[in-house]
Amino acid sequence: VRRLASSGLARDYEVVVGRGTLADLGAEARRVAGGTAAVVCCDENVAPLYLEAVGESLAAAAYQVSHLVIPAGERQKSLSRAEEMYGVLYDRGVRRTDLMVALGGGVVGDLAGFVAATYQRGVRLVQVPTTLLAQVDAGIGGKVAVDFRAGKNYVGTFYQPRLVLADLDVLATLPAAELRGGAAEVAKYGLLAGGELWELAERLAAGGLTAAGVSEDLVAGCAAYKLAVVAADEREETGARAVLNLGHTIGHAVEAATAFARYSHGEAVALGLHATLRLSRELCGLEEAQEQSGHDLLDVLALPRRLDGVRPEQVCALTARDKKADAQGVAHVLLDAVGEPRPGVRVPAALELEVVTWLTER
Amino acid sequence: VRRLASSGLARDYEVVVGRGTLADLGAEARRVAGGTAAVVCCDENVAPLYLEAVGESLAAAAYQVSHLVIPAGERQKSLSRAEEMYGVLYDRGVRRTDLMVALGGGVVGDLAGFVAATYQRGVRLVQVPTTLLAQVDAGIGGKVAVDFRAGKNYVGTFYQPRLVLADLDVLATLPAAELRGGAAEVAKYGLLAGGELWELAERLAAGGLTAAGVSEDLVAGCAAYKLAVVAADEREETGARAVLNLGHTIGHAVEAATAFARYSHGEAVALGLHATLRLSRELCGLEEAQEQSGHDLLDVLALPRRLDGVRPEQVCALTARDKKADAQGVAHVLLDAVGEPRPGVRVPAALELEVVTWLTER
Repeated sequence: VRRLASSGLARDYEVVVGRGTLADLGAEARRVAGGTAAVVCCDENVAPLYLEAVGESLAAAAYQVSHLVIPAGERQKSLSRAEEMYGVLYDRGVRRTDLMVALGGGVVGDLAGFVAATYQRGVRLVQVPTTLLAQVDAGIGGKVAVDFRAGKNYVGTFYQPRLVLADLDVLATLPAAELRGGAAEVAKYGLLAGGELWELAERLAAGGLTAAGVSEDLVAGCAAYKLAVVAADEREETGARAVLNLGHTIGHAVEAATAFARYSHGEAVALGLHATLRLSRELCGLEEAQEQSGHDLLDVLALPRRLDGVRPEQVCALTARDKKADAQGVAHVLLDAVGEPRPGVRVPAALELEVVTWLTER
Repeated sequence: VRRLASSGLARDYEVVVGRGTLADLGAEARRVAGGTAAVVCCDENVAPLYLEAVGESLAAAAYQVSHLVIPAGERQKSLSRAEEMYGVLYDRGVRRTDLMVALGGGVVGDLAGFVAATYQRGVRLVQVPTTLLAQVDAGIGGKVAVDFRAGKNYVGTFYQPRLVLADLDVLATLPAAELRGGAAEVAKYGLLAGGELWELAERLAAGGLTAAGVSEDLVAGCAAYKLAVVAADEREETGARAVLNLGHTIGHAVEAATAFARYSHGEAVALGLHATLRLSRELCGLEEAQEQSGHDLLDVLALPRRLDGVRPEQVCALTARDKKADAQGVAHVLLDAVGEPRPGVRVPAALELEVVTWLTER
């Protein structure tokens, strides 16, 4: 078991990464978060797999446990679903000092996190990420949100959990496509951090991407990288946090341009990373061999390599609507080298279109 | 003009209090907040009075100004109104680096503040409080929220503005009842701070409570008291911020028990303060003469002195639903003496009922 502690946040917290740790959830939550009642939120896919075990662990730690099961899918990240969840908390008399346990992937973490952040101005939140994507990325860092119209995560806030508990054993029940989606974020951290994390990402890919192949070192390494970046810029104000958007500016635009239907988040990020590698060679002097090793890693992970089903112009029109855009447009995060991200790069519109067009023609 | 600066917050900001300051809004906002577009949110009562002047001031400081006018009243503090406002910001392509200007009383400040806090995880917020209540209390401190069912401010967050600008001249157009409601919060700050602020509150009452009688010293004094408390406990976690709830625990329950219809917030706070003064003598040894001077101040301000139209049991049932309640119930803020608040007092249920019953029979 690896224990990471954030530092430098308004309120610091622990990230626990291990195998079989789900059984310790109640004791860990009792230790760091306290509270009387615990509402466990998960989707219909996760409920039959882990809800009982989680409930037992929490009950053994003297929590009054109740459940809040929602349908699966990104469409649940809506204001209307959040409103329904507020009603559940209201009816159950949940208090600020109680716990919301977000048991699931990015959707449940973002949605239950947003509800926890805003109900009574904040009930205590425990993130129990059950997908690789959420364990290495979404479950950490305090971003919570719902979608609004075509705007992904357009209504949200920053709200740090009291505890993040990642059990790698639960990855065994993940569909292969979900595991691949998470691997796209792993590739992102490999490209950002370089060094050991890049090697761990390549090893994961070379091993054929299995749940058993996901190591504590890898997940804890990604989480530690993210915690350090978030501590430097908790509310995305100084620009330091922007590096986490590697591949995401174009990735988000791809998701929006395809109505959040054709590509999963991880698949869209993989496409965004391909484009980012290209742009990095054009604008930041990324070596061709490093660019190629990035493309290769994503290919070995069996992530999509060509953008289909959308015109390049549609994608480029949406990068300008990025939440991080200002009056000068959006700034991309590119790479000077693997392990050396460069945030704040203004990409000429013509070049952005050229690279997205290349992405549709590979 | 008085300029106060917060200190100790995650991001500090300035509070400007003066007469005729509305004309300086654009320049002040440009100096501290920057941004390209400014969306001015106000209600239908305020729009014909001040929207043009505010728009001109902002336009003169090179903001692209647009308006968002909503109906007046507490009922606007709803999730559905917030959703409609998100749609307006979306349609106008508002960015995080743009400004939301909340021009109005507590309702507009809370609602526009909540929308600003959550749209794209936060656009820049400028509070321009136009009621006495908002100038001394609601516009300062970063609490933003909408109501949910009978739960006042049950969905919200903490989000500090970039600037608070209070122009005392605008109080001249306030209905007398609104001025009285604000005076209840002034009385709260007088009771909390004692000393000069208590004397200023008594002077305001003795002068017959006119807009012209509201001094910069008084408003700046209340604002400074609140800023200092908020700095010690920005997110209401340590308990220090609880003193600001003097009179509000019962006041909020009165509002909820009467469906937010019979009493304004300030009137309900006045009733809550009467009960708090009684409880303080019973439980904290508040001197009878000080208790009486508190009741007298509220009476001179022509605030309600008797609770009508609701059974005491209904009010007491709702204090337990206070957002600050934990498993042991809610803790009241009482007074050891004027100027010496004591937070965290557990009031026996029988005594609470006795005092609320007294409030209905005075």
